[in-house]
Amino acid sequence: MAENAPKIVTLEEIEKITSSPSFEDELIEAIKAGFLRIDDFQAAPIQTLGAAPLQPFATDSTAQTCVKSGYFPSDSTYTIKVASGGHPWMHNSGNMQVYSQATGKLQALLLDEGVLTELRTAAVGSLAVQLFKGTIQCLGMVGTGVQARYQLRLLQRVTSCRKLRVWGRSASKVQALIDELQGTWEEVEAVKDAEELLQSCDAIITTTSAREPVLRATGDSFNTRLIVCIGSDAPGKGELDQALIDAAHQLVADNPPQSRERGEFQQCKKTISPLKQVIQEGYIQGENTLVIFDSSGVALQDAVISQLVLKSL
Amino acid sequence: MAENAPKIVTLEEIEKITSSPSFEDELIEAIKAGFLRIDDFQAAPIQTLGAAPLQPFATDSTAQTCVKSGYFPSDSTYTIKVASGGHPWMHNSGNMQVYSQATGKLQALLLDEGVLTELRTAAVGSLAVQLFKGTIQCLGMVGTGVQARYQLRLLQRVTSCRKLRVWGRSASKVQALIDELQGTWEEVEAVKDAEELLQSCDAIITTTSAREPVLRATGDSFNTRLIVCIGSDAPGKGELDQALIDAAHQLVADNPPQSRERGEFQQCKKTISPLKQVIQEGYIQGENTLVIFDSSGVALQDAVISQLVLKSL
Repeated sequence: MAENAPKIVTLEEIEKITSSPSFEDELIEAIKAGFLRIDDFQAAPIQTLGAAPLQPFATDSTAQTCVKSGYFPSDSTYTIKVASGGHPWMHNSGNMQVYSQATGKLQALLLDEGVLTELRTAAVGSLAVQLFKGTIQCLGMVGTGVQARYQLRLLQRVTSCRKLRVWGRSASKVQALIDELQGTWEEVEAVKDAEELLQSCDAIITTTSAREPVLRATGDSFNTRLIVCIGSDAPGKGELDQALIDAAHQLVADNPPQSRERGEFQQCKKTISPLKQVIQEGYIQGENTLVIFDSSGVALQDAVISQLVLKSL
Repeated sequence: MAENAPKIVTLEEIEKITSSPSFEDELIEAIKAGFLRIDDFQAAPIQTLGAAPLQPFATDSTAQTCVKSGYFPSDSTYTIKVASGGHPWMHNSGNMQVYSQATGKLQALLLDEGVLTELRTAAVGSLAVQLFKGTIQCLGMVGTGVQARYQLRLLQRVTSCRKLRVWGRSASKVQALIDELQGTWEEVEAVKDAEELLQSCDAIITTTSAREPVLRATGDSFNTRLIVCIGSDAPGKGELDQALIDAAHQLVADNPPQSRERGEFQQCKKTISPLKQVIQEGYIQGENTLVIFDSSGVALQDAVISQLVLKSL
């Protein structure tokens, strides 16, 4: 290949770099630093292939591909991230591409197969928990898929809580996840209804691709003070019911307009605080306050994680 | 690399494949066939980095990058094309990425450095000339850059005319182009004003990145019957003056709505025929009719040329 051929970074190399706890710490820090600069970040409108208003892929009508592109003008590169998912029988896929702003040349192709998207998504969830200053004695997890595992991996970097309750639609998947977590988590149990988490967990992370709410407010009181919504980020999808969103004292999002359009707060009239503000000022927190944080994912995270991987090569 | 690593196709391999006249013939045919299916093609909105409404790249404020993505649902792949340009001191750059609709996996990365974008653009220009049934005794070229050369290369596949007149802003660049063309073209000369082309050439191809019109109607009559506009495809750019567009009997575009928005027919009220219709029915042609064809480039062309290259590997 020519001398200026792009660097091809394989999944194996990426997993070697990203598997260390120090990388996880650096990532959460870098994501935090990135969100402090979000006002400078230039993100192009997301391209979504295989989804309305475009026709579905004929070969896999459930699959979709998102192209997220953006850059900090003060950096020397721009990042294009391709992530596909929705395939019922396989993991997500994708890659990240880093280009020179000065020449337009592709400098590096990170063949992460979606791993970096999972990680940068998990990093935002962990950041949202790190920013919570209340006591966390028990964590709740809604969902038992790949992203639940990434969340649980990075959460260990930001909280000393090792008590976990899990809910998922499939009892066997819940059990498989619980079995996997033995050893790393001290006390892990399944709950029968997601609503039980609202009684027993201080913070809950949701990681499903639900089209219908999976977490509903039942009764007047609940003990949860922080709900971090990581899943469902497409128009018409949502993980929480409206009563829960109505009950919240603060709504926070990585990208408020996007959360209103395709995230957890669709058609929501309440104020949504940007994550940047919470990094600077903290959450509104009191005895009985409920904060709901929604991440629908922004290109900034892709720019941050791809740079971090390249730096670590 | 893993067994399902994408195929990386180097510029050298691409140039070997694309340099044969038979590839050029196949390309023009495939582009024509593609446009007949354009109603099925699913194109995502173009992402443009480095240009308004986003901030320019700080490292090169003239550069821009376009991401064009799309697919035929009835095919098994989708294509993402990254093309950057506007760098004053270097060629355009870019690549084409072919993914499986069934798995979302990157199947092939074509490191064409912009060559395939030049070729697929030239193929549409040649198709526009091929569809013209009038006599072409003299061709006119406005512009002396890379795309002018690609046009002149592919035009030889669709017309037997070898008489050419060239206009460009820089006399030395005009001379350099003329010198290069000696041998392949029988009679090549420079003209002093672009308007002379309207008197002496039956068909004119424009390939500049002009922000101001470079071809103006002077006086009432001109002999040109076909103007093919290949350059300038961004909001606020245009190669023809309004009087010329007003004088045309038929306006044609590869993508009429896009030509109104960012092509040659910005804010134009006249009917614009889609290229597909002209492939099926021919141009409106008479003794004194003027047809203006505008190509602003569509993702379909990227899907077609990348498939053709992969088939030829």
